[in-house]
Amino acid sequence: MTVTSPTGFIAAGVACGLKKSGNKDLALVQNLGPLYNSAVVFTSNRCKANPILWSQQVIADGRVEAIVLNSGGANCYTGSQGFQVTHSTAESVADALGISAGDVLVCSTGLIGEQLPLEKLQAGVHLASEALGEATANSLEAGIAAAEAIMTTDSKPKTVQISGGSAAAGNYSIGGMAKGAGMLAPGLATMLVVITTDAHLESHELDTALRAATRVTFDRLDSDGCMSTNDQVTLMASGASGVSPELLEFTDRLTEACASLALQLQADAEGASHDIAITVLGAATEDDAVKVGRSVARNNLFKAAIFGNDPNWGRVLAAVGTTDATFDPYDIDVTFNGVRVCQGGQPDQSRDQVDLTPRAVDIRIDLKSGAHTATIYTNDLTHDYVHENSAYSS
Amino acid sequence: MTVTSPTGFIAAGVACGLKKSGNKDLALVQNLGPLYNSAVVFTSNRCKANPILWSQQVIADGRVEAIVLNSGGANCYTGSQGFQVTHSTAESVADALGISAGDVLVCSTGLIGEQLPLEKLQAGVHLASEALGEATANSLEAGIAAAEAIMTTDSKPKTVQISGGSAAAGNYSIGGMAKGAGMLAPGLATMLVVITTDAHLESHELDTALRAATRVTFDRLDSDGCMSTNDQVTLMASGASGVSPELLEFTDRLTEACASLALQLQADAEGASHDIAITVLGAATEDDAVKVGRSVARNNLFKAAIFGNDPNWGRVLAAVGTTDATFDPYDIDVTFNGVRVCQGGQPDQSRDQVDLTPRAVDIRIDLKSGAHTATIYTNDLTHDYVHENSAYSS
Repeated sequence: MTVTSPTGFIAAGVACGLKKSGNKDLALVQNLGPLYNSAVVFTSNRCKANPILWSQQVIADGRVEAIVLNSGGANCYTGSQGFQVTHSTAESVADALGISAGDVLVCSTGLIGEQLPLEKLQAGVHLASEALGEATANSLEAGIAAAEAIMTTDSKPKTVQISGGSAAAGNYSIGGMAKGAGMLAPGLATMLVVITTDAHLESHELDTALRAATRVTFDRLDSDGCMSTNDQVTLMASGASGVSPELLEFTDRLTEACASLALQLQADAEGASHDIAITVLGAATEDDAVKVGRSVARNNLFKAAIFGNDPNWGRVLAAVGTTDATFDPYDIDVTFNGVRVCQGGQPDQSRDQVDLTPRAVDIRIDLKSGAHTATIYTNDLTHDYVHENSAYSS
Repeated sequence: MTVTSPTGFIAAGVACGLKKSGNKDLALVQNLGPLYNSAVVFTSNRCKANPILWSQQVIADGRVEAIVLNSGGANCYTGSQGFQVTHSTAESVADALGISAGDVLVCSTGLIGEQLPLEKLQAGVHLASEALGEATANSLEAGIAAAEAIMTTDSKPKTVQISGGSAAAGNYSIGGMAKGAGMLAPGLATMLVVITTDAHLESHELDTALRAATRVTFDRLDSDGCMSTNDQVTLMASGASGVSPELLEFTDRLTEACASLALQLQADAEGASHDIAITVLGAATEDDAVKVGRSVARNNLFKAAIFGNDPNWGRVLAAVGTTDATFDPYDIDVTFNGVRVCQGGQPDQSRDQVDLTPRAVDIRIDLKSGAHTATIYTNDLTHDYVHENSAYSS
């Protein structure tokens, strides 16, 4: 059900005192091979945290043996001292596992602008590597412990397991874990994700598949428009199944896994009371559909209206009108939970017919300008969102 | 102190039943000449309301004799029937004042997607034109009544009066009124503004001055990132002072008037508990400075932190990093209310030294990449903002 589901991966999650709560705050995932092929997608934020700067160097050769992740601090805007902390953490993992520090990815999440205590990280790495030594293959418990250790304001761990392949070609497995509850916006959502597979694929194939999968999943999750400095989605392949799937088939399964994790992130977004899917139809291009969906997903007035169960479709059109997508502003249809409230830019069915009390909200916007479509996932803007983010604690 | 301060303008504000509250909801401002030169800046939203479509035609020749404004309904996304309502309203004003409908601007504000009742508008125009007939020159009372009639969720009317010119060249006056408390974002903020002057200037000069003034005032107010469908800033000149000011001097005074109204809008923004000025220094271009300031002003996590009096400068840098402005991500300084919390991309003075309890918050971001600067004005994201916008009522 998680990163330990595919053959060839062991994991641990421990508490080392980074979180004041005493909860687990350090996770370690090791690839036992025989392959160590990997791919990573990083945040597109130009203000990148130190672990991102480190991991970008590690992934350059496509080979990763282990990944260490901590909550309780982002190690971002902490200067050269912060980079040294990341480097030393990777060295500690390398020493403990008898591998090269250049094959160890590092991820951090938490408050920006505070130094991480290296001694605590090192003690955590020591604890986690001891736990790895005792780990058994496919231990669900160990996988869940790792998923718990990367949580910040998440209310629950997020994990996934997907089976791929066929009887003829042989079967393989994909497992994954994710954290993220705020700063959920594209490029990527604010999150750390580790995906493992026992499929046998080259690093450049993993990279192609991962970019294709994240483009239509994590990149279309836009809970609050805020892009993080620490986002990292890592895909590690052990090849232990001996199965070399077709890349397209693998990409489909990987996309399923990413979509599952993305929807789990949406469902656990800070303070949200509605999960909103904004589907843009009839767009001239896929880019137009994404652009229009995102403009609505980022409109605070629309998001606050959904919180109040108010089908205020004028706010949808006001947001659509700020984009340069191809459409006739006076020939757009808008549907709220199946009720077409606007047809051809004019009032259609009464807004009183719309029931917005369920958590799931389905918005459809027909631009009538082409055949492309895209769905953006977002949340409503609530009292609880404001509250949780007005007094940040990791 | 308002649109009736400059010589040559009379105004009225009346109640005609568009607002359920029974408050004033229709304003009429007439230019008595001898000049009728005017300029208008409209919303850049592609989804424009019917009164915007009408007013764009009226201003084409630069001549305006009167402007009628209503609250209680935006007349947006109401189709050809809605346009007919706007047209008929202008006709009613023209009949009542003995002028041409082609010289009557119309503005509306309120909920999108609902038809406005024409009979009530016509009754309102009748009442207002009767009041104009009884109006005396420079009646403060009448000007305030007009400013009250355009309020929606505003808690108070916004007005301004500025004197220009010199003893040598002669003096002239600029007056203005504004409404707007939500959908406050650039290009323009969600608002209706009417500015009057008794200066003697050509319409193309008024247009140049108005665009210059709005670019650095209303366009830099970004309370909630939401751009309206109905924004209109109108400048009408009567020439009654007989003074023809230098265009640069007039532009400076007009900018002062616009800045005063913009700050009044910010101070009355829905649910806000802080007025935030984000000044970007050391930018390579003015565009860069605006872009960076706007990215911070639109970051919900930053805005929620300010609500909680939390000087979370990491959220400032995370927002800055999403832009393509010229800067070194690891050499930026950030100051909160005079305390430099980040220097060269690293923690500087303790965030504990920052006092965010005053309503006014001053954020300074030094990009160290040039000599340009700009200030963006925004508000915090509060429980009250969410509340007021989750159950919209005009």
